Amino acid sequence: MPLTIEQVNAASGAEAAKLLDGLYEHSPWIAQAALAQRPFRSLSHLKQAMADVVREAGAGKQLALIRAHPELAGKAMVSNTLTSESTHEQSKAGLTNCSPEEFARIQQLNADYNAKFGFPFILAVRGPRGTGLDRKEIIETFARRLGHPADFERAEALRNIHRIVELRLNDKFGVEPTLGNLVWDWQERLARHSDPGYAERAQLTVTYLTDAHRAAASQIAQDMRECGFDEVEIDAVGNVVGRYRGSSEERYVLTGSHYDTVRNGGKYDGRLGIFVPMACVRELARAKQRLPFGIEVVGFSEEEGQRYKATFLGSGALIGHFNPAWLEQKDTDGVTMREAMRHAGLPGSLEAITALQRDPARYLGFIEVHIEQGPVLNEIDLPLGIVTSINGGVRLQCEVTGMASHAGTTPMDRRRDAAVAVAELALYVERRASQDGDSVGTIGMLQVPNGSINVVPGRCLFSLDLRAPTDPQRDKLVADVLAKLKEICERRGLAFSFEETMRAAAAPSAPEWQQRWERAVESLGVPLYRMPSGAGHDAMKLHEAMPQAMLFVRGQNAGISHNPLESTTNDDMQLAVQSFQHLLQQLAKEMQ
Amino acid sequence: MPLTIEQVNAASGAEAAKLLDGLYEHSPWIAQAALAQRPFRSLSHLKQAMADVVREAGAGKQLALIRAHPELAGKAMVSNTLTSESTHEQSKAGLTNCSPEEFARIQQLNADYNAKFGFPFILAVRGPRGTGLDRKEIIETFARRLGHPADFERAEALRNIHRIVELRLNDKFGVEPTLGNLVWDWQERLARHSDPGYAERAQLTVTYLTDAHRAAASQIAQDMRECGFDEVEIDAVGNVVGRYRGSSEERYVLTGSHYDTVRNGGKYDGRLGIFVPMACVRELARAKQRLPFGIEVVGFSEEEGQRYKATFLGSGALIGHFNPAWLEQKDTDGVTMREAMRHAGLPGSLEAITALQRDPARYLGFIEVHIEQGPVLNEIDLPLGIVTSINGGVRLQCEVTGMASHAGTTPMDRRRDAAVAVAELALYVERRASQDGDSVGTIGMLQVPNGSINVVPGRCLFSLDLRAPTDPQRDKLVADVLAKLKEICERRGLAFSFEETMRAAAAPSAPEWQQRWERAVESLGVPLYRMPSGAGHDAMKLHEAMPQAMLFVRGQNAGISHNPLESTTNDDMQLAVQSFQHLLQQLAKEMQ
Repeated sequence: MPLTIEQVNAASGAEAAKLLDGLYEHSPWIAQAALAQRPFRSLSHLKQAMADVVREAGAGKQLALIRAHPELAGKAMVSNTLTSESTHEQSKAGLTNCSPEEFARIQQLNADYNAKFGFPFILAVRGPRGTGLDRKEIIETFARRLGHPADFERAEALRNIHRIVELRLNDKFGVEPTLGNLVWDWQERLARHSDPGYAERAQLTVTYLTDAHRAAASQIAQDMRECGFDEVEIDAVGNVVGRYRGSSEERYVLTGSHYDTVRNGGKYDGRLGIFVPMACVRELARAKQRLPFGIEVVGFSEEEGQRYKATFLGSGALIGHFNPAWLEQKDTDGVTMREAMRHAGLPGSLEAITALQRDPARYLGFIEVHIEQGPVLNEIDLPLGIVTSINGGVRLQCEVTGMASHAGTTPMDRRRDAAVAVAELALYVERRASQDGDSVGTIGMLQVPNGSINVVPGRCLFSLDLRAPTDPQRDKLVADVLAKLKEICERRGLAFSFEETMRAAAAPSAPEWQQRWERAVESLGVPLYRMPSGAGHDAMKLHEAMPQAMLFVRGQNAGISHNPLESTTNDDMQLAVQSFQHLLQQLAKEMQ
Repeated sequence: MPLTIEQVNAASGAEAAKLLDGLYEHSPWIAQAALAQRPFRSLSHLKQAMADVVREAGAGKQLALIRAHPELAGKAMVSNTLTSESTHEQSKAGLTNCSPEEFARIQQLNADYNAKFGFPFILAVRGPRGTGLDRKEIIETFARRLGHPADFERAEALRNIHRIVELRLNDKFGVEPTLGNLVWDWQERLARHSDPGYAERAQLTVTYLTDAHRAAASQIAQDMRECGFDEVEIDAVGNVVGRYRGSSEERYVLTGSHYDTVRNGGKYDGRLGIFVPMACVRELARAKQRLPFGIEVVGFSEEEGQRYKATFLGSGALIGHFNPAWLEQKDTDGVTMREAMRHAGLPGSLEAITALQRDPARYLGFIEVHIEQGPVLNEIDLPLGIVTSINGGVRLQCEVTGMASHAGTTPMDRRRDAAVAVAELALYVERRASQDGDSVGTIGMLQVPNGSINVVPGRCLFSLDLRAPTDPQRDKLVADVLAKLKEICERRGLAFSFEETMRAAAAPSAPEWQQRWERAVESLGVPLYRMPSGAGHDAMKLHEAMPQAMLFVRGQNAGISHNPLESTTNDDMQLAVQSFQHLLQQLAKEMQ
């Protein structure tokens, strides 16, 4: 009989500790300490409570927890299998029969890993879908994690331990994240479509209106039909639009995200925001339930601006932001967008595209689920984040000019060193952005052109990327940074110039929609975490026409994105679907 | 009748002011204030006193002095001549008959210059030799100076005013720097020899044992013979060696510098240190004077390591530092050094080279005159500098590794930004080197490889060049900088690595020889200024075998070197020759 959270809540302290025994390797203190937070509102709540205990335990206890685990490589060499989990878990991972080369590689990695970090390599070998990583994935992960800074890797080891515990809890409580698995599998299947040149290397690349892009659209459309959407169509810009009608009135909740990708990108960026609401509609349709409003899910065809410089084309078309000049824009093969559209069976006419513009009066608002694409939720062990605003940003290309001179013969007080001036600015940008708490400032490009080891830099080129959750906050940041640049250059006797290359307005979440997400997340027993979105999203576009709010889902691997390592888990996806369902039910209640 | 310094000293204040009237344009207050420093020990002393008055007068009076000068361009347009000096000076400059294109160009430059700086363009058109710049040189200088930072250009204008005054004083006092002119002209003639590919573009490049190099050696040898040296030879490594025997004992003062150049280099780097003692020997020979010691002047054949990686080959051979492997080293055309030597008529054998090693017991010491190659003397209006030490140096190539991440989604407190860490180090290097007063530290190469505007830098490559007048001071500097690098990287969770690519020992001046230079400079009425040499020189090599000390001569154009703009003046060269003569006479007295 699987355990229930009610049993854990009802049990005495000692009984409850016994019920939860064996979750963390040789470390019963974790579950015991977590019990102080009873009653648990959900299994998520229990997981979170235990993760909190580990986080607050300090480095000494954390290291002891990590060292309580057997060595992966030792096991592999003894048992000829690669796992740090139980036999049951091993069988799920299906990791048997390493080749002699694989053994040797692992032995070396293991020696290097222990020498560098002083603790064993811990990996949740059942992986993010819970069905097991293959040996190649395990060895690649081992090699990659060997390159981490020590403190980061310690945190990564703890995150793997939490994932192992999550899987053990699911087993113990007889829980299967079926909707998360459904969404996972949809994404996995969609990722089989990739552009020529990338597909062969098993890299995911789906750019606007290529064969792979059209195949992806068809796949999404088919999945929508199978979910029970009432209408499914591919519109004049290639958006896949599914509508699930409401019971009474004609208003819709609009949701979705994009299905195109960057080159060699991840499987979840954009796509997660299409499949999460699809899973909700599927459940409604299976239950033959109609809400007092319709649900319109859009898979936006173009957000990344890869094949054509036409970022947010898909969502932009819904608010009338289609630049007619784009139709004549050519890709690197000389194919115009209009030709690409016609080749894809789309009208390729401005009239058809203009007709896509939505009447905001017909919509309650826009919501979007998206993988975080950043490290925050991963680092604080939280599956979901509430987006408060999509940051506004300004980008600048800058140059400081001093006087090149002999590094040996020019005394320190007689230099006009362009690079040291930029160094001073870099530290200011760091300090100034930190001051706001939620602003970010980055010098991503930095170069002394034709620098020589024995020449004081006469020029330094650099970029500035400054973002903040509101336009006034961003503008103050930009003004302060530029004032500082001026002050530094004047004090040091240098010249400077800059060019603004981008300016994007912030899109703060609509409070009532943000609050719906917050109530949804709270209902799952998951702590609330509010955060700005540093990256741009389709919701930025819809923001101009209707209220919007976003939900972030934790990314694994420090939240890396635009990269094949982008990942999340079936359990986190399950929570995203449940949050979305809760939001829909809230809205239904409000409208009754 | 020319004025004498004694007349100025003897006159009443009012009379003296009248004697010095008209030196600084509409600014009699400068000479008047300088008179407080009477009695003047020399004309140099008077020049210096006036320059001091201007330096201490503050920006307001300095600007008034600059603005008291007529506009060069205005004059050019009215009078069809390019000058800001008197008719007499104009005729020396020989600048008449500008073409319409030159007028237009100057008009434009003048408008831009006034708009940028707010004062007229001042140029000592009689130039560093006193015989006048041509129109092309004037226009190029105008264009170049337009690019200066404002405060630097104001100082440059004042330096030109001082040069104009220096030339006026020479006229007023009937003084001609004949030995300076001699040295100047020797250098000008030697600069006619240049390697193929450079000669055609009027660029100076003389690399080891090329035809131009051999022609230069012959020219120096011939000049030495004409000076009255007793023995002149070209040795087995191509050094030109001239000996002027002493009256009694067999000991020599060794002196000299190198005659090879960098590619597209200056005319004075190295060569000045050959011609200054040659002028002294010429004067001794003309006066049929023998000193109680001999003078051995060496034109070193190779210091710059351009054709072969064999820096200091010429001076190294004198102390037995010739690397036998060098003989087989090939230039870019595949010619070995041995082949080059034989082609040049040298034996190309290790035996002949080894035989060049000097017996230190036969030498009193080594002295070297060199152009400063730095901005210090130029900036403080001093013609000569006493070298306290040739700095020791260490060079490192370094890398900091963090974690690349999304510039939008990675909060400031969760970054591992490699570039900001290097920025922090750059400011530390600046502060730490400044602390010593005479250390220098430079990050000359700096780069975020493949940086993107929206990516937090995961890597940053940079170089370190750290120098100090003593090895312990240098080593402390290096240790502190590397400790700081470690501290920064640990605090920020980054990795770092570095490779030492060069380590050169410091060569402090022998106190008794440095003092002889000091007495020589003082005897000219020129204030003493002691400074380390940031660049390496042949004296570094001789340092290992005998006491050494160097004298620096001011460089124009902020002391730029390894560049065609490298320059000094006939007056400064005159002072260098006079200092050298004084040092020889001191030594003669000491040995009586």
